[in-house]
Amino acid sequence: MRLTPATELEYRCKMLQNHMAAEGLDAIIIAQNADLFYFTGTVQSGCLYVPAHGQPLYLVRRDAARARMESGLKEVLPFGSPKDIPQLAAGHGYPEPKKIGMEFDVLPVALFERYRKVFPNAQFSDATPLIRLVRMIKSHYEIHLMKDAADQVDKVTRRVRDVLREGMSDLELAAELEHTARLNGHLGLIRMRVFNGEMLFGHTFSGTDSAVPAYTDTPFGGVGPSPCFGQGASYKPISRNEPIIVDFAGSFDGYLVDQTRIFALGGLSDRLRKGYDDMLRVQELMKQIVVVGAPWGEVYDRCLALAVEMGYADSFMGAKGSQVSFIGHGLGVEIDEYPFIARGFQDMTFQVGMAFAFEPKVVFPGEGAVGIENTFYISDEGLKQLTYSSEELVILSR
Amino acid sequence: MRLTPATELEYRCKMLQNHMAAEGLDAIIIAQNADLFYFTGTVQSGCLYVPAHGQPLYLVRRDAARARMESGLKEVLPFGSPKDIPQLAAGHGYPEPKKIGMEFDVLPVALFERYRKVFPNAQFSDATPLIRLVRMIKSHYEIHLMKDAADQVDKVTRRVRDVLREGMSDLELAAELEHTARLNGHLGLIRMRVFNGEMLFGHTFSGTDSAVPAYTDTPFGGVGPSPCFGQGASYKPISRNEPIIVDFAGSFDGYLVDQTRIFALGGLSDRLRKGYDDMLRVQELMKQIVVVGAPWGEVYDRCLALAVEMGYADSFMGAKGSQVSFIGHGLGVEIDEYPFIARGFQDMTFQVGMAFAFEPKVVFPGEGAVGIENTFYISDEGLKQLTYSSEELVILSR
Repeated sequence: MRLTPATELEYRCKMLQNHMAAEGLDAIIIAQNADLFYFTGTVQSGCLYVPAHGQPLYLVRRDAARARMESGLKEVLPFGSPKDIPQLAAGHGYPEPKKIGMEFDVLPVALFERYRKVFPNAQFSDATPLIRLVRMIKSHYEIHLMKDAADQVDKVTRRVRDVLREGMSDLELAAELEHTARLNGHLGLIRMRVFNGEMLFGHTFSGTDSAVPAYTDTPFGGVGPSPCFGQGASYKPISRNEPIIVDFAGSFDGYLVDQTRIFALGGLSDRLRKGYDDMLRVQELMKQIVVVGAPWGEVYDRCLALAVEMGYADSFMGAKGSQVSFIGHGLGVEIDEYPFIARGFQDMTFQVGMAFAFEPKVVFPGEGAVGIENTFYISDEGLKQLTYSSEELVILSR
Repeated sequence: MRLTPATELEYRCKMLQNHMAAEGLDAIIIAQNADLFYFTGTVQSGCLYVPAHGQPLYLVRRDAARARMESGLKEVLPFGSPKDIPQLAAGHGYPEPKKIGMEFDVLPVALFERYRKVFPNAQFSDATPLIRLVRMIKSHYEIHLMKDAADQVDKVTRRVRDVLREGMSDLELAAELEHTARLNGHLGLIRMRVFNGEMLFGHTFSGTDSAVPAYTDTPFGGVGPSPCFGQGASYKPISRNEPIIVDFAGSFDGYLVDQTRIFALGGLSDRLRKGYDDMLRVQELMKQIVVVGAPWGEVYDRCLALAVEMGYADSFMGAKGSQVSFIGHGLGVEIDEYPFIARGFQDMTFQVGMAFAFEPKVVFPGEGAVGIENTFYISDEGLKQLTYSSEELVILSR
C-alpha cells in the first residue's frame, strides 16, 4: 500500500490548471472516484475544488480524518454539501467562479443540478477532456505501479497451467484466477469510466463462448453467468482443441494493466493458429509505427489495413456485425483512458508518458477467438512493453 | 441461468405505466443497466422506450440477437443512437412525447444532453422515483431468486469455519470466501445505484479494522487494500480474541441478499458479546414493528431509540462522528433500493412484497465492531426472513 507522493499531486494539479487557463475556466469541481484518487491520492465522499490558481481544496463529507491521513494535499476541509463550497472557496481567497468545469461524462443529472443551484450565475462546461489530457501522461511513479500490476497479471497467467483441466467450467477457471489475483493484491475492482461500464477481473472463456458478442464495447464478449451480467465466463465446460482465452486486468494499488493470452488442451485448428500468429504480426506493426507524433487514428488505420490484407475483414476485432472500431485503449486508474487507438482520432498524437493496451484479436463465430493483448508505454527512449508473460500459444498435451 | 418470464416483464411495465399515468408522463426512456435488466430481462447496450400505453420498445445497439434471445419483450429493435428514437416510436404509432422521464440519479449530464437534443420540445423529469416504486414490490419469482442468493451466502458463511486461521490476513479470508461464492454462482458483481457506489462481494475484516470509517455510506467501512479503494478487507492479520466480520452480499441470477455474521478465534470481550446480543434485540424489535402500513422512518426511530436506551448513542451504526442515519435498505437487483429504513422517511410505509436488509451494528473504535444483518421480505402472511445462517456468535477455540 503506497500513498501518492505530494509532489505527484502538486504536478497533476499544476497540469490541470494549465489546461484550465487555456480554456478560461475559473474552477473545476471533481466528484468522481477515479478522478478523486488521481488528484487527491485517496477516495473519500466529497469533492475537490480546483481553482484557476492556488491550492486545491479537498472537501470531504466522510471521512475527513482518513483524507488527511491518506492525501498529500495541504487543504482537506470537512464539508456537508455543495452549498458549503462558495463560502469555503471565498474563505481561501478564491474569487467567485464564473466558468466552472465538471465531469459531464460521469456526473449524474440530479447531482449536477445541485451544484448548478449553488452557483446560479456560473457557466458550466465539461471538464472531462481536460482531466483526460492530464491523466493520459503517466509519471515514472505511475509506470512503477503499472509494473507491479504486470507482475500480478503474470502470476495469474502462469497459474492457468496449474489449474486448467478438461471439463472444468469457464467460471471455475475464472474463479481460480480471480483467487490468485486477490492473493496477489488485486483490488477486485476495475474502474471503467464509460456509462454502464461494468467489468470484473477480465474475461476468461473458451471455444464458441469466446466468439459470442456482448453489450460491452470489446472485441470479445462472452455469454456470462446470467442475462443480468451477460459477459465473461459462463458455465460452459472446457473441452479439448478449443481456444481458452485469459484476458485479465491486473490491478495493483490503484493502477491497471491489461493482458490477453491463449491456451488450449490438445491442439488448435490451423485457422486459429494462423489467426494468432497474424495478430502477433499486427502487434509487430504497431510497435514499429507508434512513435511520438503519430496520430492515434493513423495507427488504428494501418493496423486495420494489415488485418484486412491478411484476410480478416469480417473477423478482426469482433465477429461480423459486432466489430468494434478500436484496437487499443489507454489505461491507468481506469480501463478506458486516453489514448484511444480507434477510428477517427486523427488529431490526437502519441506522446511520451502515454500508456495503453493494444489488443489485436480475431473472432470466428461457432469456433472461437484468438488474439494477443499487452500493455505498453512510451518512454523517453521509445515504446516499452509493461506486460511480459510468454507470448507463445500455450498448448497443453494433458 | 434463468430468463425472466415474459409475464413478469409485462406486469412490471404495466405497473410503471400506471405510475406514468398518475404523473402525466408520455414516455420513460430507461438507459441504466440495472433498470434495463429489470424491465427487459437482459442487459444490452441501448435503451428501453416505455410509452404511456402499448408495448415498450427495446432499442439495442449491441447485441440485438442476444436481446431477442434473452428478453421476453415483444419489440426488440436495432438502433444506432438516440437520434433514431422518434422515428422508431412513430413507426409503432406512439405520439410524439411532450413529457419524458429519465433516470436523473444515474444518467450522466453529457448523455442526457444527447437525448434532450433529440426531443427539443419535450419537458424532461426524473423517472427514478417511479422506477423505484415499481422495483420495490417483489414478485414471487423475484423472492425465489433471492432465496437462491440466500443459499449461496449461507454456503459462504459456513465456509468461514473451514478456512479461518490465526495470522491469515483479512484479504486472504475475503479471497477464500469470494472464491466459494463464485463457485456457487455469484456474479462477482454487486450493482449499486448511488453515484460513486462501489462494492465487491461485501466486507470481510477483523478487530480494529472493522471500526475504521470509510467513504461508503455503511456502518462498517474498513481500511481496504489501498487508498484507491479504501473499504473492506486489508492486509491486517487476524488475531485471537477480536471480532471477525463477514458482511457478504449473495448475488444469484441478478438478485441480491445481504447478511452479516460475526466470528472469533478464542473469545470476545464482554462489551462485544453484549453488543452483539443487544443488536439481536434491535432485530427482534424490528420484526415486531414492521407491519404493513408502518412508516419506514418510524421503524428507524424506534429501533434507534432502543439502541440509545441500551447505551449505544455514540456507537450505533458507526463510530461517533461517522454514524449513518439508516439501519436497513431495500435490495433486489441493486443493493440500495426502496425501502430505506432511515431517518426522515415518515411518509413511506411498508407494503406486501417489499424486501430489505436490516443491519443493526455497533462500532467501538480501537476495539472492533459487532452486529447482525439479515434480509427479509413482507409476504401476505407477514414478515419472512430470507437469509438463514445460524445467528449464534461463532467462537472457534482453535
